Amino acid sequence: MKFQPLGDRVLVQLIDEAAASVGGIILPDSAKEKPQNGKVIALGTGGKDEDGNLKKFTVKVGDKVLMPKYGGTEIKLDDEEYQIVREDDLLGVIVK
Amino acid sequence: MKFQPLGDRVLVQLIDEAAASVGGIILPDSAKEKPQNGKVIALGTGGKDEDGNLKKFTVKVGDKVLMPKYGGTEIKLDDEEYQIVREDDLLGVIVK
Amino acid sequence: MKFQPLGDRVLVQLIDEAAASVGGIILPDSAKEKPQNGKVIALGTGGKDEDGNLKKFTVKVGDKVLMPKYGGTEIKLDDEEYQIVREDDLLGVIVK
Amino acid sequence: MKFQPLGDRVLVQLIDEAAASVGGIILPDSAKEKPQNGKVIALGTGGKDEDGNLKKFTVKVGDKVLMPKYGGTEIKLDDEEYQIVREDDLLGVIVK
Amino acid sequence: MKFQPLGDRVLVQLIDEAAASVGGIILPDSAKEKPQNGKVIALGTGGKDEDGNLKKFTVKVGDKVLMPKYGGTEIKLDDEEYQIVREDDLLGVIVK
Amino acid sequence: MKFQPLGDRVLVQLIDEAAASVGGIILPDSAKEKPQNGKVIALGTGGKDEDGNLKKFTVKVGDKVLMPKYGGTEIKLDDEEYQIVREDDLLGVIVK
Amino acid sequence: MKFQPLGDRVLVQLIDEAAASVGGIILPDSAKEKPQNGKVIALGTGGKDEDGNLKKFTVKVGDKVLMPKYGGTEIKLDDEEYQIVREDDLLGVIVK
Repeated sequence: MKFQPLGDRVLVQLIDEAAASVGGIILPDSAKEKPQNGKVIALGTGGKDEDGNLKKFTVKVGDKVLMPKYGGTEIKLDDEEYQIVREDDLLGVIVK
Repeated sequence: MKFQPLGDRVLVQLIDEAAASVGGIILPDSAKEKPQNGKVIALGTGGKDEDGNLKKFTVKVGDKVLMPKYGGTEIKLDDEEYQIVREDDLLGVIVK
Repeated sequence: MKFQPLGDRVLVQLIDEAAASVGGIILPDSAKEKPQNGKVIALGTGGKDEDGNLKKFTVKVGDKVLMPKYGGTEIKLDDEEYQIVREDDLLGVIVK
Repeated sequence: MKFQPLGDRVLVQLIDEAAASVGGIILPDSAKEKPQNGKVIALGTGGKDEDGNLKKFTVKVGDKVLMPKYGGTEIKLDDEEYQIVREDDLLGVIVK
Repeated sequence: MKFQPLGDRVLVQLIDEAAASVGGIILPDSAKEKPQNGKVIALGTGGKDEDGNLKKFTVKVGDKVLMPKYGGTEIKLDDEEYQIVREDDLLGVIVK
Repeated sequence: MKFQPLGDRVLVQLIDEAAASVGGIILPDSAKEKPQNGKVIALGTGGKDEDGNLKKFTVKVGDKVLMPKYGGTEIKLDDEEYQIVREDDLLGVIVK
Repeated sequence: MKFQPLGDRVLVQLIDEAAASVGGIILPDSAKEKPQNGKVIALGTGGKDEDGNLKKFTVKVGDKVLMPKYGGTEIKLDDEEYQIVREDDLLGVIVK
């Protein structure tokens, strides 16, 4: 079974924060809207610009991304937690 | 009797969540706005872009989709529950 | 006497819900914003797109439509209840 | 003395509701935002589209119109009550 | 000393309401947002359309105008009260 | 050290109101959102229109301007008070 | 490890305010929304205009910038505090 996001959405698997902090990013407790670490699992079918042309995604499957905690929709799939989020809401990509 | 959605709306039949979870997707209880599983029953007459051209739908009749619980309008038809929802509000398609 | 809606509005005559449910559509009591059954009585003079061109209506006079209860403006005409509503707010057409 | 509305506004003279109901339109007491009957007294200087071209009015002086009660600005002129309202807020024209 | 409004703003000198009512316009006490009589003293440098072209003003210096009471910014200049208001917020021109 | 505003912002040095009122402008105490006198110290790098072209500023360095009190961001630089404000929020220029 | 901001976002390292005030900018305590000093560490992948063309950044890596305190998203990386902020929200550049 697979989940295909629609439009400019991507499916992101949440990465455990403790594990993530080992990798260098620790999110401050005081932040009102804590961003979350995740991994891009699937790209959407693509958003469309004003002329109806498909827009390309900047991120790709496998990218480790940082995203706002409450911007997307949480789902559970085979006991793993995912978030469906519009690409424009992704904050950045973590590069090794 | 048939229901023809207007514009960029689709008619989605709600799928029982217990049954759905067997299929792999379980929605977390803590989610503020739980998404719902459904099946596309009818596509709308089509939204129009800025030049008045008809926009194509990305989903098709029969697609199993995930949608936000409160984004659409609920109706009952022959004792089945449906939701009328704009295509852009659909989160994704569940592919076998 | 006749009422000619302006712009992209249509005049819709409300259909009694009890009668409507016989025809198959029953609206759930729990719905926060119950849709209403109605019949299109008159189309507006037509909305205009960005270039000033008249936009065509998708519905036609006589169509049985479903519309949100609070989206339009209620008026009474010769003891019948009507609603004036923008076409984009109509949810769908009921086809026999 | 004359009042020339600016832009896409029209000047509408309020018609007494009791008198209006004789003519067939009775507005329900339960309506949250009661529409009002009126007569178009003066058209504005005209709104402009995105290219700066003047947009034509659909209504004309003398038209009996229905408008939302609180959408416009009330003024009194020689003891008569008027409302200044943008044309797009007018609901429809009453045709004999 | 002179005040040059910027963009699509105009400088309007407030006209005393008692004096104004002699001229025919009396504003109802019950109106939630009473319009005010004024005289255009200075036009702005001009707003710009989407292509960067300067838009012309419809009103001219000396015009007696009606404007919403709270839409603009009040200033005092040599003991006279003025309001700085965007032209699109002006309701109309009073013509003799 | 210099401060270069970004985009369509300008840096404005606040002028003492008492001093300003000598020059003719006195701001009423009753005004909910008192405008403030200031002097343009630096223009931004320039806003861009929809085609990516740089937009010109209407004000220039040295202009005495009137601006809304709460529209911008206050900063202190070498004990002087400044405000960073978008040009479109400036109300007008005071000309001698 | 590196953080690559997405779209029109930049990664800004916060500069200690005490240290910053030595350099001349002191932010008033009374300001409701205190701006913050920072240094641009990384530019985003670039925002896109309406035609899908990449927009250039006005700031560059190494620029000392002033930004609103609550406009961005705070993250911690190797014990340093950063903010991810859209370029249009940056107030200005501090030039020596």
